[in-house]
Amino acid sequence: MPVNLKPPAAADLLPVAGVALGVAAAGVRKANRRDLLLVRLEEGAAVAGVFTRNRFCAAPVSVCREHLKGGAIRALVVNTGVANAGTGEPGLAAARATCAAAARLVGCAPEQVLPFSTGVIMEPLPLAPIEAGLPACAADLREDNWAAAAEAIMTTDTCPKAASARVRLGGATATVTGIAKGAGMIRPDMATMLGFVATDAAVAPALLERLAREAADASFNCITVDGDTSTNDAFVLIASCRAGNPAIEDAAGEDYAALRRGVIEVAARLAQAIVRDGEGATKFIAIAVEGGRDAAECRAAGYAIAHSPLVKTAFFASDPNLGRILAAIGNAGIGDLDAARVRLWLGDVLVAEGGGRAASYREEDGARVMQQEEITVRVDLGHGAAQATLWTCDLSYDYVRINADYRS
Amino acid sequence: MPVNLKPPAAADLLPVAGVALGVAAAGVRKANRRDLLLVRLEEGAAVAGVFTRNRFCAAPVSVCREHLKGGAIRALVVNTGVANAGTGEPGLAAARATCAAAARLVGCAPEQVLPFSTGVIMEPLPLAPIEAGLPACAADLREDNWAAAAEAIMTTDTCPKAASARVRLGGATATVTGIAKGAGMIRPDMATMLGFVATDAAVAPALLERLAREAADASFNCITVDGDTSTNDAFVLIASCRAGNPAIEDAAGEDYAALRRGVIEVAARLAQAIVRDGEGATKFIAIAVEGGRDAAECRAAGYAIAHSPLVKTAFFASDPNLGRILAAIGNAGIGDLDAARVRLWLGDVLVAEGGGRAASYREEDGARVMQQEEITVRVDLGHGAAQATLWTCDLSYDYVRINADYRS
Repeated sequence: MPVNLKPPAAADLLPVAGVALGVAAAGVRKANRRDLLLVRLEEGAAVAGVFTRNRFCAAPVSVCREHLKGGAIRALVVNTGVANAGTGEPGLAAARATCAAAARLVGCAPEQVLPFSTGVIMEPLPLAPIEAGLPACAADLREDNWAAAAEAIMTTDTCPKAASARVRLGGATATVTGIAKGAGMIRPDMATMLGFVATDAAVAPALLERLAREAADASFNCITVDGDTSTNDAFVLIASCRAGNPAIEDAAGEDYAALRRGVIEVAARLAQAIVRDGEGATKFIAIAVEGGRDAAECRAAGYAIAHSPLVKTAFFASDPNLGRILAAIGNAGIGDLDAARVRLWLGDVLVAEGGGRAASYREEDGARVMQQEEITVRVDLGHGAAQATLWTCDLSYDYVRINADYRS
Repeated sequence: MPVNLKPPAAADLLPVAGVALGVAAAGVRKANRRDLLLVRLEEGAAVAGVFTRNRFCAAPVSVCREHLKGGAIRALVVNTGVANAGTGEPGLAAARATCAAAARLVGCAPEQVLPFSTGVIMEPLPLAPIEAGLPACAADLREDNWAAAAEAIMTTDTCPKAASARVRLGGATATVTGIAKGAGMIRPDMATMLGFVATDAAVAPALLERLAREAADASFNCITVDGDTSTNDAFVLIASCRAGNPAIEDAAGEDYAALRRGVIEVAARLAQAIVRDGEGATKFIAIAVEGGRDAAECRAAGYAIAHSPLVKTAFFASDPNLGRILAAIGNAGIGDLDAARVRLWLGDVLVAEGGGRAASYREEDGARVMQQEEITVRVDLGHGAAQATLWTCDLSYDYVRINADYRS
């Protein structure tokens, strides 16, 4: 059961002019479920992407990087079921063949198509069902089809993830709509396991790349479920340039700031939705670390907490066994951290200071916060002025069940 | 159920001349279980220790470091139930008071006592039951009491851990006997959650320190259960200097090599026992990484595999979902790793090469190895000539149950 997350209502997802989506049940791995998505972009769209840093990156990630260099992207193809990662040269050929099949339907060159895959690693991508399913996707292409698209990219997700926002840009109104998938193998490094955000705003391509990176850093790069960076992480930002705004070319201007807010709002909602639907999650936990020397130090402390199986199981049990959080902070690799200066809060409750339990701390206060479905852990490292926030979930029996059963 | 691990037979544990052990049920946290150990060393013993790098190190770890500087250690006190970590100044005072109480019984200065604690973090150490229990420990002091000592230091351990070896040194025969505890919060950095090894060999103090570090590196520093480095890790090596051998003073000599082999044999058996009794463990997994640029790179790849919850749950399920191992290797932070050069074996079965699944690999071969209780994962990084081996276990429902229930 995801934590305070519901499927988006189709009516709440705003179409983005120039971006049409079509889905099909192609039978890539399982029959009778939507597992193939085609996105068609009108000419003139700008596309930017950030991808996993995993050295075993998937074949489609390599092909995306190649094709993005050429620009003029006209289509995206996404399959679920098989990740096409750890597949060597045959995997690259399969990803390219997918692009060619989509290109024929859209009427563009194969190099103008970006391929994406998600699912089991080190299985060959079955090309035949994808080639056979793409015409059905093409027949289904509609601009108001975001809800179906969100569903068609799910793997162990229990809930589709989508969000929209509106932004005022120099007199015009622009729309931002996005979808994402992911529930396990979630510790995005550059991006997450498939997030797509589109806007109709006109943006210069170089600025769009910057915006993609900034939005990933403020959203997908702030979440973790299990610390495992996927082979297929990809976050793609599309600007169809149809909103009628004067093209945004100045990163210091008001329009860039307004669009940035809108894109980050959508991306952060999608990223948080991934954590809320984290495999086996029963709690949504924000970890706010302040007082670090730099943001990297704050993030290191946050990840040490978020990845500790002992901390995660304590949250699952609603057990305020909070010494485990101190132990995790102590393991964050901050060589000159002074334990006596660290302060820890659970919600509003001061838990630790001066190297140990706060005099004012009462177990029943900690227990009360631990019962909540949404919990904020706040840490002051007492080591500087930087801050960073991460979002994560707990570790439950169901995480083990889901991942022990995943292929069966 | 630990993996191929039984309680040691008391008769198999060789006494070490000059090292007497006594235990008591002091009621530190729970009634009616042995939870306090006193070790008395005759004058002339040399002691070396290596300790956790966790910045929230426990009070007894700080006191041990202090007291070891003075030398001439005459006693060790170990309590289980409460870790005396995250306890600030009052924790340091409690650790020192424990030393004073033991010193009165043994007839030495408080600075000649080393204190150790293990159990719940951020709870105050209850001094009264320890002070009341120590006389019973003193009355129980015997050189053939290692089996009881191994039992008295357990927390979530299901099986006591102890081992002995004999070594020939320049015509004399020396004994090496050790005990350890630990099942969760196990990813020793400098040492593990309480390991004590004693020998009657005569060794120069400076060499003993070197041997303690070398033995920790070859044993406790090669294991991980859950990636959480404890606040209380300590590995102590005692030389009672009673074996009648010429004192070992040359690290290049044969006697040092012989003693080193014996100490590492005992320490590695203890370290592997911790993994076999890892919280919820159903599989014992050796991860042998070769072809790295240096040992640190091999260890980074090994830990990335050993800490991946997805890899660990696949082992629990006996599911050869081995792409997860490739993904973990890709996340090891080896920036210039060439995925196409990496080779992966499960037992004798070549699984992956050339960036993907090996042509010869058959799922039934992987499935056959995954059924075993003891599994070797072998990785060739194709990146150099160094190698390293780690030992770990799987992640099961019981890990979650044990850690969700631990305090209740």
